Amino acid sequence: MLPPTPSLATSIGPVLETLSIVGTFVFAASGALAAARLQQTLVTFAFFALVTGVGGGTVRDLLIGAPVFWVVDAVPAMACMSAAVIVWFTPRRWWSDRALDWLDAIGLAAFAVFGAAKALSFGVPPFVAGMMGVVTGCVGGIMRDLLAGEPSILLRPELYVTAAAFASGLFVALRWIGLDVPVAGLIAATLGFALRAMAIARGLGLPLYRQPAD
Amino acid sequence: MLPPTPSLATSIGPVLETLSIVGTFVFAASGALAAARLQQTLVTFAFFALVTGVGGGTVRDLLIGAPVFWVVDAVPAMACMSAAVIVWFTPRRWWSDRALDWLDAIGLAAFAVFGAAKALSFGVPPFVAGMMGVVTGCVGGIMRDLLAGEPSILLRPELYVTAAAFASGLFVALRWIGLDVPVAGLIAATLGFALRAMAIARGLGLPLYRQPAD
Amino acid sequence: MLPPTPSLATSIGPVLETLSIVGTFVFAASGALAAARLQQTLVTFAFFALVTGVGGGTVRDLLIGAPVFWVVDAVPAMACMSAAVIVWFTPRRWWSDRALDWLDAIGLAAFAVFGAAKALSFGVPPFVAGMMGVVTGCVGGIMRDLLAGEPSILLRPELYVTAAAFASGLFVALRWIGLDVPVAGLIAATLGFALRAMAIARGLGLPLYRQPAD
Repeated sequence: MLPPTPSLATSIGPVLETLSIVGTFVFAASGALAAARLQQTLVTFAFFALVTGVGGGTVRDLLIGAPVFWVVDAVPAMACMSAAVIVWFTPRRWWSDRALDWLDAIGLAAFAVFGAAKALSFGVPPFVAGMMGVVTGCVGGIMRDLLAGEPSILLRPELYVTAAAFASGLFVALRWIGLDVPVAGLIAATLGFALRAMAIARGLGLPLYRQPAD
Repeated sequence: MLPPTPSLATSIGPVLETLSIVGTFVFAASGALAAARLQQTLVTFAFFALVTGVGGGTVRDLLIGAPVFWVVDAVPAMACMSAAVIVWFTPRRWWSDRALDWLDAIGLAAFAVFGAAKALSFGVPPFVAGMMGVVTGCVGGIMRDLLAGEPSILLRPELYVTAAAFASGLFVALRWIGLDVPVAGLIAATLGFALRAMAIARGLGLPLYRQPAD
Repeated sequence: MLPPTPSLATSIGPVLETLSIVGTFVFAASGALAAARLQQTLVTFAFFALVTGVGGGTVRDLLIGAPVFWVVDAVPAMACMSAAVIVWFTPRRWWSDRALDWLDAIGLAAFAVFGAAKALSFGVPPFVAGMMGVVTGCVGGIMRDLLAGEPSILLRPELYVTAAAFASGLFVALRWIGLDVPVAGLIAATLGFALRAMAIARGLGLPLYRQPAD
């Protein structure tokens, strides 16, 4: 019913797998912090952490027809629960918005590349596989903002979805010209992180749509 | 394409199956009442009833790789439509917030236990199966609140997700120590309901996160 | 892993297939326009276009256990990207709310009938297949409104979900009495469009729920 996919770690590479767990933990922490801003209970911390940490990968797995990664393996869910508990018990000042933005940037780049790699390994066309990377990187944060009633991360002025699309698209392109998964993954994740880093550090953004509505 | 799962009723037991239909109806009624507060049409009543009644079980089935229960069998969808029609035609005072809270508490406990039981029967690891119970119990209400633009049930001060987590986790624990499904189910659902009942009657809640943001 | 369904086009008919692509493009454009109202970037235009264009069909495919249509075939996703780019580069006055309502009406009727037809072809019970048409027609717009933080299309006073339900239910009924797919599809889509057209032109609506809350 829920066949394991043992070859996936091998085919995607341990580097990406590790980044994926780091990304899950970091996103989960950002979910728990949203619950902290709303002065919620530990159980709500856990719920927000889970949805934010695994939301993007869940939608990706459902779309590509893969067994949902955190349902067949309890490790990612435990990582989310750990993030919730750690955020609950540690001082709030450890988790500044600024620090979180940087951790989130790591998660975003890692998830975007991992999502594209997994989609390609399931036979998804390259154009769509690139989109699966964006979904993996961005959907958890979107769900977190919807649940918390906060303005969506989608609507932030500085680059966010774009950095995910860049990392994901670059990985697909590098695979297409023949690079191995670990090499393509490291290059794409690093450059995607760099782009997001410039957005955080300098407020780098794309041009906005400026036509009046008449 | 959509294989029936005939052994499920047997393995989970008729008590839980019955509670699941009751839960669907009650949640559907709470969805229809959200539409009533917004002074909507009968069709919108039906849509809200469906989403609220089957939303949690749908997400659970997608996550565990089961055929979606209300797509292979028309009965749950008909129960939702009935709830919408009944709420539309009966006097509003029959459906006080207080009465609804109590019905909702039954649905929550029933869904949490049923969701965990179904997940276990599909081979999901126990830790994750407990979470599937929470998803089954809580996601329909979350979707209802998102659609209606109301503050999420997640953010209520008194115990809600916690009661679902308690019922679901207790069921998994009782199964693990060897109790039969019907016995474990009845104990877990009853105690989960009792916890939620104390929350309704006395405003019982978990401690809230109180650290200032600096 | 993602088996193609080559017989689907044949069994549903080229008319419906064409309407489905038109519907995807039109809904995608309405998503891009929501991004334009929020003065977003081209990347956000693309994200909104994708979610709105394929959201309803995605939920339908997940529910009925079909491979997700735009993941196995890159054409619908490309149609969404095209809609985003076209809305970005063309003058805003080409895309009046009024013009969009009419295009949206075409998409709604086409999607409702296509969704019901696809569900029937996957062996879903007729009562539920009718609901799948409504999901296909309405969920993309609901997701667009949630992402954009706008009041949901569900809550508009004039007929919307009702028109989808009418088209979808009529198609199922016509199939049940023995009409061929293309004939039943054209009749149901045309009359569904006509109902929505009356709602747009004359503000036609269903009676609203008017009981006071006491």
